[in-house]
Amino acid sequence: MSYSQTLSDRLDSLQAVNGDVLSVTTGGRTYEGTLMPHHDFSDPDVLVLKLKSGYNVGIKVGSEDGVDLVQRPEVPAPKKRDKPVTGNKPRVAIIGTGGTIASFVDYRTGAVHPALSTDALVSQVPELADLADIDSKVLFSIFSENMAPHHWQELALAVANELNKGAEAVLIPHGTDSMGYTAAALAFMLGEIPRPVILVGAQRSSDRPSSDSPSNLLAATRFAIEQDVAEVCVLMHDGPSDDSFAVHFGTRVRKMHTSRRDAFQSINVAPLATISPDGVTINHAPRRKSDVKVEARMALEKDVVLLQYFPGMKPWHFERAVSGSHGAVIAGSGLGHVNKEMVEFISKSIYGGTPVVMTSQCLNGATNLGVYDTGRDLLQAGVITVDDMLPETAYVKLMWSLANSDDVATTMRTPIANEMSERREMNV
Amino acid sequence: MSYSQTLSDRLDSLQAVNGDVLSVTTGGRTYEGTLMPHHDFSDPDVLVLKLKSGYNVGIKVGSEDGVDLVQRPEVPAPKKRDKPVTGNKPRVAIIGTGGTIASFVDYRTGAVHPALSTDALVSQVPELADLADIDSKVLFSIFSENMAPHHWQELALAVANELNKGAEAVLIPHGTDSMGYTAAALAFMLGEIPRPVILVGAQRSSDRPSSDSPSNLLAATRFAIEQDVAEVCVLMHDGPSDDSFAVHFGTRVRKMHTSRRDAFQSINVAPLATISPDGVTINHAPRRKSDVKVEARMALEKDVVLLQYFPGMKPWHFERAVSGSHGAVIAGSGLGHVNKEMVEFISKSIYGGTPVVMTSQCLNGATNLGVYDTGRDLLQAGVITVDDMLPETAYVKLMWSLANSDDVATTMRTPIANEMSERREMNV
Repeated sequence: MSYSQTLSDRLDSLQAVNGDVLSVTTGGRTYEGTLMPHHDFSDPDVLVLKLKSGYNVGIKVGSEDGVDLVQRPEVPAPKKRDKPVTGNKPRVAIIGTGGTIASFVDYRTGAVHPALSTDALVSQVPELADLADIDSKVLFSIFSENMAPHHWQELALAVANELNKGAEAVLIPHGTDSMGYTAAALAFMLGEIPRPVILVGAQRSSDRPSSDSPSNLLAATRFAIEQDVAEVCVLMHDGPSDDSFAVHFGTRVRKMHTSRRDAFQSINVAPLATISPDGVTINHAPRRKSDVKVEARMALEKDVVLLQYFPGMKPWHFERAVSGSHGAVIAGSGLGHVNKEMVEFISKSIYGGTPVVMTSQCLNGATNLGVYDTGRDLLQAGVITVDDMLPETAYVKLMWSLANSDDVATTMRTPIANEMSERREMNV
Repeated sequence: MSYSQTLSDRLDSLQAVNGDVLSVTTGGRTYEGTLMPHHDFSDPDVLVLKLKSGYNVGIKVGSEDGVDLVQRPEVPAPKKRDKPVTGNKPRVAIIGTGGTIASFVDYRTGAVHPALSTDALVSQVPELADLADIDSKVLFSIFSENMAPHHWQELALAVANELNKGAEAVLIPHGTDSMGYTAAALAFMLGEIPRPVILVGAQRSSDRPSSDSPSNLLAATRFAIEQDVAEVCVLMHDGPSDDSFAVHFGTRVRKMHTSRRDAFQSINVAPLATISPDGVTINHAPRRKSDVKVEARMALEKDVVLLQYFPGMKPWHFERAVSGSHGAVIAGSGLGHVNKEMVEFISKSIYGGTPVVMTSQCLNGATNLGVYDTGRDLLQAGVITVDDMLPETAYVKLMWSLANSDDVATTMRTPIANEMSERREMNV
């Protein structure tokens, strides 16, 4: 605990320790909640209270005038738990990978470091232990821009093991930068699963005022335990409200904002479910929990490229990018186009054995190569169309299909993990 | 006119010619409007009526049962115009470039061809001549996925000439696939302009049921004449309503749906204006019309690449893409990240004289390289940050800056055409 001297003195004078309930009044507002642990890299003048809503709030106290700090001994402090009580509760496995959800702000630089262990993360959310027998471990501790396909494979193996050992659900705290890619990869690799696998991130680090880390973790745990859903999905905040969440299919979700808590959006489908104080709304008929044994198919062809088409793109940009690759996904313009000079080179790539999949940089809507000349030329060249699949999901699925299917084109065009709408014959 | 025999006979029996008002009842609905010209490639059983709303509707009539076709001679047919009346009306220049807005459906294949001349397009919207003295010409007739940077230069020259010859406004019918890129390019190249330049597209071809071509053209003409706005902007439908439109800054707009009429969305700002039957709402204080002479700066460094970061991206992907290029824009993950292996190669590129600009594939929100280690390493390497600028706009601006500025980094970080929010010092 490295509070500032001032704040440390004030807490000492109250004999306040972690887990005690404090009431803090500042700027005309009063916050009442449980004092949470303070970390080495956090602002020494900020204490973190867990509010009754389950939400953590960081309050600058140390050197501020007019901040009133009161111990509330009349409210019983929450029971200290060394270990969650086991036996009667569902076992939920938490597999840590790093990211903001498991991070601290270094107050000296304002920078965020991935420093929280999964245990520490769980200890930030004591309500988890009321709901479930939490079994947590750290698989990686990296920011998700450093997640590479080989990490997806390790993670899929770990998840499959947990599910096959009977975990009621697997939660994966994950950096948000590439959480959508990882979710899609797990969806393809895990295949049929008996119980839910939920990736959960945070846009604001765990010790920050209004961090979304505890609320997302708690909502994910509740959803996993209470709902009869067996999908790989992503749970994050939905809209500006503190207590609304959306659950997205792992293959249909994209980070659509750099910083908002509700950055994750389902594209081309409604979210699998939305969660509000009024309850849970399931928008799709998802797979139900069954007793299937997970037989993960983790092979990936890693030499696949994702290219966004741009007006100055030359055939050589494409040629260089696919040279040495075993597959390419293009985020074309509009319905799935590139300039006509490129068609010949795409054709050459396909006939040389390197499949090319066409998606749209519009993100929303389906590709359709039957409308314009460019599209028909691309179809003629053998380009694989994938309806309304996201470019990022197509990139992941192509890696997986190349390693797991004898007929990549058919596999790409066939929905297997909610990644696309039903095949429309006109596009084939 | 190549109607089917049945439809041709029915129209003949009414002695109906183009410009007459017809009432057509089908499927329980009655449409009343002006009979529009029929084109060779259109469905021979479909007639097109221009409704009072200014909206064109195609109705399948020929071989359908229960279709009632009535001539309405009591309604005066619109005046036939050989040429618009000149003299008292503002002169609006229309520079055709092709695209769906100037296209026909070939009913035999369902394919769309860019076949309409700008004159033919204008003749589809006779109301234009009531508003303005239309001066139209065709510069290109291509689908916009084939627009390349040299087209932007020709177009900028033509627009500058029209403005300098006194045109009250310049309208540019344009394919939607790359309309956002062209709009951004014009905004940078034209610099200060005296009167508006409006790009207008259509998602459904001119002779199609519910084409948005006439309504968009008409709304753009009205907006250009009636509003005191001197910006390069894009006008398209807004929402599902037939008579709502949005006017977007050319540097802030992106095609966000493959097929919807309201595919174009302003990103990170409100639209410049919205138009509804209730009137026009201007959301920003735009540049006002002035008597400035346009001095277009059309030079572009065309060897610039736009790369989307993906989890399996290897340093060699980057190296190959930038080799032979004079600049690169990366659509990084989240706040503007790539994996740590790439940083060294990005640094090498920058020190070798090839600037690298970081944007976000999230599209919404600003980049911020000060929060995480990866970002700070990228800043250290000399990556240029551009706040909330779209990747596509950054790509266009980098081409322009390399050819027009001695200090590319400063130019990139300084807003010059509404392309970004004011510079935030923390990002520099």
